[in-house]
Amino acid sequence: MTPTKPTIDTAALARDRLARLRAGLAEQPYDAIVLTEPESVLYATGYRSMPGQVFRTHRMAALVTVTDLWLVAPAADVPAGATVVPVDRISPFGRFYVESTMPDPVTEVADRHDGLAPALAAAVATLPSSARLAVETRDVPADVLAACGDVVEDGAGLLFSVRSRKLPAEVELLAYAAQLAEAGIDAALAAAGPGTTEAELAAVVAGTMVAGGGDPRFVVALTGERSALADAVPSQRAWKPGEIARFDVGCVVDGYWSDIGRTAVLGEPSARQRDVYSAVRAGEDEQLAAARPGLSAAELFGIGLDAVARGVPRYRRQHCGHGIGLSIYEPPIVAPSVGTELAEGMTLCFETPYYELGWGGMMVEDAVVVTSGGVELLTRSGRDLRVVEA
Amino acid sequence: MTPTKPTIDTAALARDRLARLRAGLAEQPYDAIVLTEPESVLYATGYRSMPGQVFRTHRMAALVTVTDLWLVAPAADVPAGATVVPVDRISPFGRFYVESTMPDPVTEVADRHDGLAPALAAAVATLPSSARLAVETRDVPADVLAACGDVVEDGAGLLFSVRSRKLPAEVELLAYAAQLAEAGIDAALAAAGPGTTEAELAAVVAGTMVAGGGDPRFVVALTGERSALADAVPSQRAWKPGEIARFDVGCVVDGYWSDIGRTAVLGEPSARQRDVYSAVRAGEDEQLAAARPGLSAAELFGIGLDAVARGVPRYRRQHCGHGIGLSIYEPPIVAPSVGTELAEGMTLCFETPYYELGWGGMMVEDAVVVTSGGVELLTRSGRDLRVVEA
Repeated sequence: MTPTKPTIDTAALARDRLARLRAGLAEQPYDAIVLTEPESVLYATGYRSMPGQVFRTHRMAALVTVTDLWLVAPAADVPAGATVVPVDRISPFGRFYVESTMPDPVTEVADRHDGLAPALAAAVATLPSSARLAVETRDVPADVLAACGDVVEDGAGLLFSVRSRKLPAEVELLAYAAQLAEAGIDAALAAAGPGTTEAELAAVVAGTMVAGGGDPRFVVALTGERSALADAVPSQRAWKPGEIARFDVGCVVDGYWSDIGRTAVLGEPSARQRDVYSAVRAGEDEQLAAARPGLSAAELFGIGLDAVARGVPRYRRQHCGHGIGLSIYEPPIVAPSVGTELAEGMTLCFETPYYELGWGGMMVEDAVVVTSGGVELLTRSGRDLRVVEA
Repeated sequence: MTPTKPTIDTAALARDRLARLRAGLAEQPYDAIVLTEPESVLYATGYRSMPGQVFRTHRMAALVTVTDLWLVAPAADVPAGATVVPVDRISPFGRFYVESTMPDPVTEVADRHDGLAPALAAAVATLPSSARLAVETRDVPADVLAACGDVVEDGAGLLFSVRSRKLPAEVELLAYAAQLAEAGIDAALAAAGPGTTEAELAAVVAGTMVAGGGDPRFVVALTGERSALADAVPSQRAWKPGEIARFDVGCVVDGYWSDIGRTAVLGEPSARQRDVYSAVRAGEDEQLAAARPGLSAAELFGIGLDAVARGVPRYRRQHCGHGIGLSIYEPPIVAPSVGTELAEGMTLCFETPYYELGWGGMMVEDAVVVTSGGVELLTRSGRDLRVVEA
């Protein structure tokens, strides 16, 4: 069942996100915020950087006030960036050449600044001298922090409060990304049988994502004992009757991530396979039943953990889920001692996987949106243990 | 024409890479080296981290001596990592739980160290006190550098000398990754016509890569004026007769990257389109003709630049190519003032793209391996301006 991509005006969505950020900013004891996380820069500016997807060391920043917005980016990003942010509000660094037969400031972006820090400092220098400034995180290189000048506040709290509660169009995109992941798993299992390799399973998952307009970002498809290896790269190992296949997959649609898990057995599952899966599924089921505004992430963690532990003694787990959006993991992480309460509009993934070396791993992971009275699944495929004909 | 994936024993390749690194290490004035770049960690250990592909903040390191090898990695990487590196040579950090019914040290990796720096320090502490240590780069967080203790040397030179000259199996994988990218472009053009969108072109490219066992990493497919935007995300824009489509695409196969460019016109190209393409192609042609061991990257840059400038007056360009391997850009960058000389076994991409706002962008980019007397193309598709029936 291939899902239909929602028709989203991504430019309008970017404007709505910026408006939400500015509404939050207006209530803060500071006038401007420097965004240092790439996903926050995308949130505020609407600019999806292709170089940012390719180069591990790529860096951007943004400076946001209630009336102004600066994108700080490599010169190579300016031609595409200037289709989204006015070029006189991009502070570029590094060298990249583009030409024009007409005068165009985009042709003059090379060598304006020699790094992110001075380019950011130039944007910050446009603020009134009285402006109070926050930075998203101080965990940035010292020169970048220094470029912000006198930082009065940490802005992570503002970014969390704004980014964690999704706009309806964000939920639609997250649901579609999740459903593409599901469709990929369904297609892989429909095509699978004895001898299908992990790599073949993964290729069907990724191909389904691509055909639906998603960018595959991770496709974990592991069989037999290898299904216990958590996040491993699929191999040439062939799936054999009686064995588990565990999928943990995600793609990106217009910047929004998915992270979905399903488990299958080739042929009739053993009693142990059924029992472990029931325990793992009970963890997710009880999370789904209990989650609602006001419940803390730590409480939600305990609910999932305790449910699995009734079927898998001494079950241990470092987290049982996480927020999801423009980042694959965003706060709140569903983990012990995370006091953050769920709130309407948050989107999360719930998961209670179990990995046993020499035997296998099982999981079911789904994305949800928190509603006024509980949560609603963004996925729509069955959450039972899948059985593939051997 | 779909290429055939070469049969490479990746475990044997990893052993051969480590042997090459150790042979280089034996000639250095130090006894051990800390690898801090993820691609160098993969080079030495053979461990491809799936979390490392997903999480932007993922960090690993390796410690290499002529007789010993340590992988320093998040606990979540240990189940998969221990299939490649002995678990007693993995220094883990952070929390991740995996179980076993038999005693297994992989079940005890959680909470051994609370970050990369102390986990690395624990590995470094196993060295004899007389050991002299190099670090790949000092451009790492201060606590990571401190964990190395008394660093006597920078190891970047060793890594360059070892990683830049590829083993035959590395060249085979790079050629296959390049040919998958070409096959994707060919398939996209074969399916394209008036009205095909950029996103549709990109989906065919990515789908071809996936079907061939590659992970698509960037698919730039831009039409009309947008072809001038350098690396931009494909849009819903429809290709119209008379317009350019510019492709700049890459995938990863067993860790090895491709980065290939081609340009097409829908219907009969205009005189200007033919002229500009001829100039751009002349840049690559003259690079291909001139490149040989002993030629410096700066000389090669000048050759490409001058050739294009004969057809495109005042042509500017920040680089005309780059090394490629486990990283998409690795030294040498083909740029002014890079004195590095080409050497047999190096693999590079050559490119002399031209971007003109309001008109379009054109490029042809190919991967080569340096031979004893010149270079050999790793690609095999035509490098002419492609013409698609309108």
